[in-house]
Amino acid sequence: MSSDLLNALIDSFRVLPSVGPRSARRMALHLLQSNRKGGLNLAEVLSKSMVHIKNCQSCRNFTEQELCSVCCDSARNPLKLCVVENPADVDLLELASGFDGRYFVLMGRLSPLDGMGPIELGLDKLFEQIRINGVKELILATGTSVEGDATAQYITDQLVNDDIEITRLASGIPAGGDLEAISGNTLKNAFNNRQPV
Amino acid sequence: MSSDLLNALIDSFRVLPSVGPRSARRMALHLLQSNRKGGLNLAEVLSKSMVHIKNCQSCRNFTEQELCSVCCDSARNPLKLCVVENPADVDLLELASGFDGRYFVLMGRLSPLDGMGPIELGLDKLFEQIRINGVKELILATGTSVEGDATAQYITDQLVNDDIEITRLASGIPAGGDLEAISGNTLKNAFNNRQPV
Repeated sequence: MSSDLLNALIDSFRVLPSVGPRSARRMALHLLQSNRKGGLNLAEVLSKSMVHIKNCQSCRNFTEQELCSVCCDSARNPLKLCVVENPADVDLLELASGFDGRYFVLMGRLSPLDGMGPIELGLDKLFEQIRINGVKELILATGTSVEGDATAQYITDQLVNDDIEITRLASGIPAGGDLEAISGNTLKNAFNNRQPV
Repeated sequence: MSSDLLNALIDSFRVLPSVGPRSARRMALHLLQSNRKGGLNLAEVLSKSMVHIKNCQSCRNFTEQELCSVCCDSARNPLKLCVVENPADVDLLELASGFDGRYFVLMGRLSPLDGMGPIELGLDKLFEQIRINGVKELILATGTSVEGDATAQYITDQLVNDDIEITRLASGIPAGGDLEAISGNTLKNAFNNRQPV
């Protein structure tokens, strides 16, 4: 591009995940050609967010306050704790589950090759909280990927001597699903975990 | 999301082309979790770009000045004008063609359903420039899509009474291409435009 600023803009878009040189150029030209107001708004909200959004002191979820809205809520039961990988999982569970306890957000899952170890996931803080608050029920709602399973297993192993009930989300056939449409592993789990009717 | 600012950030990313709610969330979380510096830089460059990048007074290409670097360059031949759809096309032609004339950037192509008519493409300005500068050779380097062809045809029709040589980029087999790998229309064009060896 003949404009230095435009080149810099295209380069800057490359920080976004899965955005290569062609997408970055398309984004820059699109905003310049047809949505400068939206671009300015994005710039403003983005810069505010990068400065003001931090991690909740208690559950590590994103928030602009010291404590997030769930951790501030005295109606939530502090004896139940649900461990999730990402902030988005908290929202999904809040919508779907009716869970009345608190959360702990790992901000990832164990994946040593990507530099995600127990320290990066804040597991020391998790164990400290479990012991200080006397948590009675721990729900491991990490994903069912290999890394999600490994993360749940690691946490379980570390708590083997604690008096605490640990559960994992049920794995089985999705609601409304046909047997044909699910993977072999899912079917295997569903068969092994069959329930009395 | 429990944070209002985070919700606003996710919403703001939706101004980018082909970014839906899931990609927008992924972008926001990625920057917050692992690249706040890159996010801040993007915000700064983006806000500068939206304010300072404008259209060249002569060719409509993006530039921070009144005239872009090509239009400022007195070594370029003002009697040759190459019409392209997008700013990116100028860069590609500059790299590949050795063209020594000037450009005119339509910032789109004729597409009435998308609100792109002759006015939006600045065609009145194009014709004015051609007549004022006494352009002798006009190269229509619009794409070979239906709209690109229609745009080239429209411009040609408007200049039917002017003394000007109008050409279109050759359409044929890509360099290094096998006959098998190209579309039927491309092959038809290549056959019809066959050249003496």
